[in-house]
Amino acid sequence: MTFHMVDIETLNDGDIDAILTRAEQFSKTYPAPSLTGKIIFNIFMEDSTRTRMSFEVAAKRLGADVVNFSVGSSSLKKGESHGDTFATLAAYKPDAVILRSGEYAAPRYAKTIFDCPVINAGDSWRAHPTQALLDAVTIKQSKGHFEGLKVAICGDIAHSRVARSDYELLTRLGAHVHIIAPELLMPKPSEMERAKRFTSMDDGLVDVDVVMMLRIQKERMLEGLQGGSDIDFFHEFGLTQDRLAHAKKDAIVMHPGPMNRNVEIADDVADDPFKSVILQQVENGVPTRMAVLDYAING
Amino acid sequence: MTFHMVDIETLNDGDIDAILTRAEQFSKTYPAPSLTGKIIFNIFMEDSTRTRMSFEVAAKRLGADVVNFSVGSSSLKKGESHGDTFATLAAYKPDAVILRSGEYAAPRYAKTIFDCPVINAGDSWRAHPTQALLDAVTIKQSKGHFEGLKVAICGDIAHSRVARSDYELLTRLGAHVHIIAPELLMPKPSEMERAKRFTSMDDGLVDVDVVMMLRIQKERMLEGLQGGSDIDFFHEFGLTQDRLAHAKKDAIVMHPGPMNRNVEIADDVADDPFKSVILQQVENGVPTRMAVLDYAING
Amino acid sequence: MTFHMVDIETLNDGDIDAILTRAEQFSKTYPAPSLTGKIIFNIFMEDSTRTRMSFEVAAKRLGADVVNFSVGSSSLKKGESHGDTFATLAAYKPDAVILRSGEYAAPRYAKTIFDCPVINAGDSWRAHPTQALLDAVTIKQSKGHFEGLKVAICGDIAHSRVARSDYELLTRLGAHVHIIAPELLMPKPSEMERAKRFTSMDDGLVDVDVVMMLRIQKERMLEGLQGGSDIDFFHEFGLTQDRLAHAKKDAIVMHPGPMNRNVEIADDVADDPFKSVILQQVENGVPTRMAVLDYAING
Repeated sequence: MTFHMVDIETLNDGDIDAILTRAEQFSKTYPAPSLTGKIIFNIFMEDSTRTRMSFEVAAKRLGADVVNFSVGSSSLKKGESHGDTFATLAAYKPDAVILRSGEYAAPRYAKTIFDCPVINAGDSWRAHPTQALLDAVTIKQSKGHFEGLKVAICGDIAHSRVARSDYELLTRLGAHVHIIAPELLMPKPSEMERAKRFTSMDDGLVDVDVVMMLRIQKERMLEGLQGGSDIDFFHEFGLTQDRLAHAKKDAIVMHPGPMNRNVEIADDVADDPFKSVILQQVENGVPTRMAVLDYAING
Repeated sequence: MTFHMVDIETLNDGDIDAILTRAEQFSKTYPAPSLTGKIIFNIFMEDSTRTRMSFEVAAKRLGADVVNFSVGSSSLKKGESHGDTFATLAAYKPDAVILRSGEYAAPRYAKTIFDCPVINAGDSWRAHPTQALLDAVTIKQSKGHFEGLKVAICGDIAHSRVARSDYELLTRLGAHVHIIAPELLMPKPSEMERAKRFTSMDDGLVDVDVVMMLRIQKERMLEGLQGGSDIDFFHEFGLTQDRLAHAKKDAIVMHPGPMNRNVEIADDVADDPFKSVILQQVENGVPTRMAVLDYAING
Repeated sequence: MTFHMVDIETLNDGDIDAILTRAEQFSKTYPAPSLTGKIIFNIFMEDSTRTRMSFEVAAKRLGADVVNFSVGSSSLKKGESHGDTFATLAAYKPDAVILRSGEYAAPRYAKTIFDCPVINAGDSWRAHPTQALLDAVTIKQSKGHFEGLKVAICGDIAHSRVARSDYELLTRLGAHVHIIAPELLMPKPSEMERAKRFTSMDDGLVDVDVVMMLRIQKERMLEGLQGGSDIDFFHEFGLTQDRLAHAKKDAIVMHPGPMNRNVEIADDVADDPFKSVILQQVENGVPTRMAVLDYAING
């Protein structure tokens, strides 16, 4: 049966275990090319240069060819339906599809159309499973395990696909998640039910092992927060060294990028050589996505 | 002598036969990579994501590298002439050039500049030879032959390079072509002289083996048809199951894409599992273009 | 130690000699692929299709994979700093970086961030070292040597990175440089100190071996020259056959492209089959950049 990665929820434990193990290996040494002669489509209905490049490098490190599709100049502009666009792309018979879309249902729909693995590279506010996997790899490298870890996810949770996928994966691996956000940027009560909710950074960070900051999606936040400004946000929810002092001594700081420096995170925290693992996250993106592609195509 | 594919008219019978035979083979199984180490330029002076991708996949399936050029960010914007742009691209010494252009003379001009094969990927309203070849492959797969077949090409013939190239190839292979269009979207009397002309779908579809619908190019049609609307067009020239009933029982339905559903073709016809071969056309695009590239470069 | 090419000034004589020698060889026959399995980033913060393609073809001719980054759709638009963008790209661990930027400090900064060779593909008005190298290859092919040659660089010197890098490389190789420009397009007195300055084409071209024309960067020139027009410029500084007659009988004409025909250079000079080596410059772009990449990565 064809493997697809729609979200963390639909992966089984064996999938997660195999991918994390392989990602850790690949982060140490690249394997021999295992995808020579394969053609992988990078279908980006939304712009995301960093995710696109991370997947493209991963595919090419494994010897695959990549064909990029972005919506900018496509037939969607000539009135073609999404269904016909996907059907057309499927008829070119790629060996795997990487899909970024603003539509939450796109990955689930795509897997009914393509005969090959479909990997969700981020959809809407719902899911970004490869980001969660690379975050897990990063945490494992620092902490060695997940069981019992306290992880605070902070900032604009309501709009974050990263928060949702991280929450899902990390709780499943045995961690406890705190979510810290202003009331208006909290997820709905029916979401992330096993997380503890805090509206104060100082309270939510107490004793945590991992602090995961999120990018403020400014255009959305300003609607939600009457009169909110970057400076106000930083004042209440920005991660400073003072606030970080509430976490464990050896806590690590993460951010999926791109960062708004001195909005959600202070410069000296982002660049802290002992605590920040933000660049390590980016570095783990390539081997993690290599692991996902290798697992999806070769099993 | 270097092989070029400017249009169907300038191919000889041996070229056509060799390409169709190879395309049919490649549609069953991919050959061993025959273009390893070759660099192919995709020069798209007009956007066409689907054609660009079809050629890019074809080239990569044969082991070639592809370099994309689109006019958007090029020196043409800094005041460089078309001639100098082509001369510059030629100086990079590609092994083949795929050229899409709005200018009808571009492919003929390009073959005087490049030392390598030039493949026309569609120019102006004049020619789209690889589309005609893949359409022929698709018809052959369903009908087994061309001699004596009746093929109706319907809709906006006046603006269609696909119609012109299909007409040329299919009549040459022995088929009889009907063209069906409103008076204002008919080609000039001096064009397509061996085709029968109809201004009524019901009349033109009688007893045909193949119905080939064309995309209405809306911006152009509305100029031509005073007061014309999508609904009016569909009412008179849209392909419905009722109209299709005038054709042979086993007639197939084709469309080069992208489709405007319920403008030139009804949903239930486009998706008819027994009659529609529209996705098969897209599928045949890759092996047909593999055949063209392989034939052009390796002979 | 990692090799970088920030500008001509920071190359040592051994580097220049090795690269020019290798470039000349590669212009005759391509070498066996020496960069198989390598991934090269084309980071273009400014559009430059011709330079991007020239590097992309060079990399692929050597068997490398290329990943393109252009600023258009990147996280820089989401408020990310240049430093964080570079750090992110570095975390994907390319094997070499080709960087085009409007910022003069960008290449110097980039080499502190990337663990791999950084090749400057043109920055601001300051440096374009690979253009200078390919120009040197072209001159060598015609003249056989550099010592004592007289080279006139003409036109918009003030805004030209090509002029600066050519001046630097050619004087270092033993040539004498004339710069010819209207007063307002001259470089500052502290720049290009070993060049002779002329404000008249007829004077500056006397007895030169090489005439190197520059593209008028219209948007900038019109600010500088009150009331200046293309026709006025051509009248005073355009290269015509009459003016060229002041140079040596066997003088060659060069232009880095893209040309504004009949602004800085007359058609019949640009296309002169005996004197113009403009297309040869473009041709030398690929082998010269192959030499640079091969030298940078393999030593």
